[in-house]
Amino acid sequence: MSKKAIPQISPALAAIERLRSEGGHLHSITNTVAQNFTANVLLACGASVSMTANPDEIAAFVARADALHINLGTLDPERETAIATAMAEATRLGLPSLLDPVMVHVSPLRLKFAQTLVDDATIIKTNASEAQVLGLEQAAICFVETGAIDKIHYKGEITTIENGTPRLATTIATGCALGALIAILSSKTAQPDIASLAGLLWFSVAGEIAAESANGPGSFPPALLDALASVSPEEIEERANCA
Amino acid sequence: MSKKAIPQISPALAAIERLRSEGGHLHSITNTVAQNFTANVLLACGASVSMTANPDEIAAFVARADALHINLGTLDPERETAIATAMAEATRLGLPSLLDPVMVHVSPLRLKFAQTLVDDATIIKTNASEAQVLGLEQAAICFVETGAIDKIHYKGEITTIENGTPRLATTIATGCALGALIAILSSKTAQPDIASLAGLLWFSVAGEIAAESANGPGSFPPALLDALASVSPEEIEERANCA
Amino acid sequence: MSKKAIPQISPALAAIERLRSEGGHLHSITNTVAQNFTANVLLACGASVSMTANPDEIAAFVARADALHINLGTLDPERETAIATAMAEATRLGLPSLLDPVMVHVSPLRLKFAQTLVDDATIIKTNASEAQVLGLEQAAICFVETGAIDKIHYKGEITTIENGTPRLATTIATGCALGALIAILSSKTAQPDIASLAGLLWFSVAGEIAAESANGPGSFPPALLDALASVSPEEIEERANCA
Repeated sequence: MSKKAIPQISPALAAIERLRSEGGHLHSITNTVAQNFTANVLLACGASVSMTANPDEIAAFVARADALHINLGTLDPERETAIATAMAEATRLGLPSLLDPVMVHVSPLRLKFAQTLVDDATIIKTNASEAQVLGLEQAAICFVETGAIDKIHYKGEITTIENGTPRLATTIATGCALGALIAILSSKTAQPDIASLAGLLWFSVAGEIAAESANGPGSFPPALLDALASVSPEEIEERANCA
Repeated sequence: MSKKAIPQISPALAAIERLRSEGGHLHSITNTVAQNFTANVLLACGASVSMTANPDEIAAFVARADALHINLGTLDPERETAIATAMAEATRLGLPSLLDPVMVHVSPLRLKFAQTLVDDATIIKTNASEAQVLGLEQAAICFVETGAIDKIHYKGEITTIENGTPRLATTIATGCALGALIAILSSKTAQPDIASLAGLLWFSVAGEIAAESANGPGSFPPALLDALASVSPEEIEERANCA
Repeated sequence: MSKKAIPQISPALAAIERLRSEGGHLHSITNTVAQNFTANVLLACGASVSMTANPDEIAAFVARADALHINLGTLDPERETAIATAMAEATRLGLPSLLDPVMVHVSPLRLKFAQTLVDDATIIKTNASEAQVLGLEQAAICFVETGAIDKIHYKGEITTIENGTPRLATTIATGCALGALIAILSSKTAQPDIASLAGLLWFSVAGEIAAESANGPGSFPPALLDALASVSPEEIEERANCA
């Protein structure tokens, strides 16, 4: 396979290096299944994170963050209230935000709620089914559609990334954690497509490296976190396969 | 120790192979402590899983699952409502279900709630204390009682399994994850005792293999997930010690 | 670096050995991010744990525990009610308790709630910012302040511990798990400062050992759990650096 490269790789690598050198604080409202792994991914990448979903406290936590991450898994009425408040606060403060509308194609209630958030999110991260029911193809926003080939849609252009490993699908919450990583990277560049590319390349190249040493789905997650922390910008660039 | 074998091992191995080749989707309402590990066990075994406990969404998630898993750990009023709705939906659709009435011997409130679910569950998984307060000895259902020797009670017969490792007790949520594995296996055979045997053998033999390479309670869980994914039916059969 | 030792190390090691030989049951109300890792730390150290936060059940769970652990992360109205009930029950039964007032310097609501608990807690575990807003310097209680140098404040004396590794900061919930470990150790000695010293030394020395073999933030947590289970009292004493 011949590797392809695009000019956006260079600013994407710069965003990764900024996060590693400067740090960055994310407030993440994510499902309880993904919380621990997502937090460890962020720490491995140089960020810090808070995860409260208490409606009465959320504004104070968002106010001290550099970006906001909203994932609709294990949604409940309290989380809904917290998410609405958090998004309003992020918009007021001009913080970048990422919305991961998990499973909106399954639950009409969740779809309806997600539709109230789409316009305020800086980046939306979906799979193909979620993108379709949300009608994102027509929208003017930046959205990431993950799958066998990952795609970044932005201002009428589509960037494709063909990196990663099937092992990423045998660990729960890898997609959720990727969303959180892109969210904090969106505080390191004003271009949402560059933040998305940075997160996708970092995560999927680290996945490739981890898969080379892992013996199965249990040894893969520790190897993935190790690779996220140690992979060099040069290695990301060398393995990047985008168009 | 001389190994013992029983004729039910063969259909149990067939259920394992069906899950690996066909996949299967479980909806699991389980405690927040066990969610992540349970999901990774299911993925390692070839299944997929959803875990929302939102009463307003739960029916839509159960409707697309092949089986339902209910674990009463970290129970709260919202989970109670979701569980009742989910169980009613599973019964309506004819989906198999497994109930794990965690700690009903400690909490009278939880015991009372569990008693409303016992008649609808396809399989009940308990320890000895939980089985006693629920009066399961007298019931006509299939129930699994885990302990130093695991027992499957079904139609007046008791099957015993003497596999496993003390390491399984130094990792949190192994029992919870085993319940989820048996739940999805119950969609691969019409016989609840065979699904129970398949889950118990798969999990405890993988535990034995993992314990042989692990250095302690931290290296054991990754090794367990690796072994769940890689252990062959032949090795399960060779190590099986049932009567 | 020359190692320093203090006479309190000997009773601290005795508390560790008592937990390992006798076991001990902790009821822990902690944030959903930390639950699984905290439980595995406790199991690696010889304890068992229950984690329900249901206000209607909590008293029955506290009544069978040897100690109570309260961590204010991911606080919500239900957890608040459960915590108040649990603390009242622990006080009534004379059980030792540890309060970890996570992020009270960020959330005024959480600070106000924490202030209602401070007088009843046997031990309070904080970082410098949390200690300051709670005004703990003036209090007569035992409190642990973690940081580059860990400090135990008790009866006007300060004990300092200079052990550990920067790796502990790249794994989420290590501080939360340390609080739970000190909580259960407080049931093995009547002196809260000795329980605190035992937990801090055990955890930070195990961290040092784990860091020597780990390749990064992913291989560190399994190595930490392995080291917690295997480190000998002699090795803890040899590495202890306290004054």
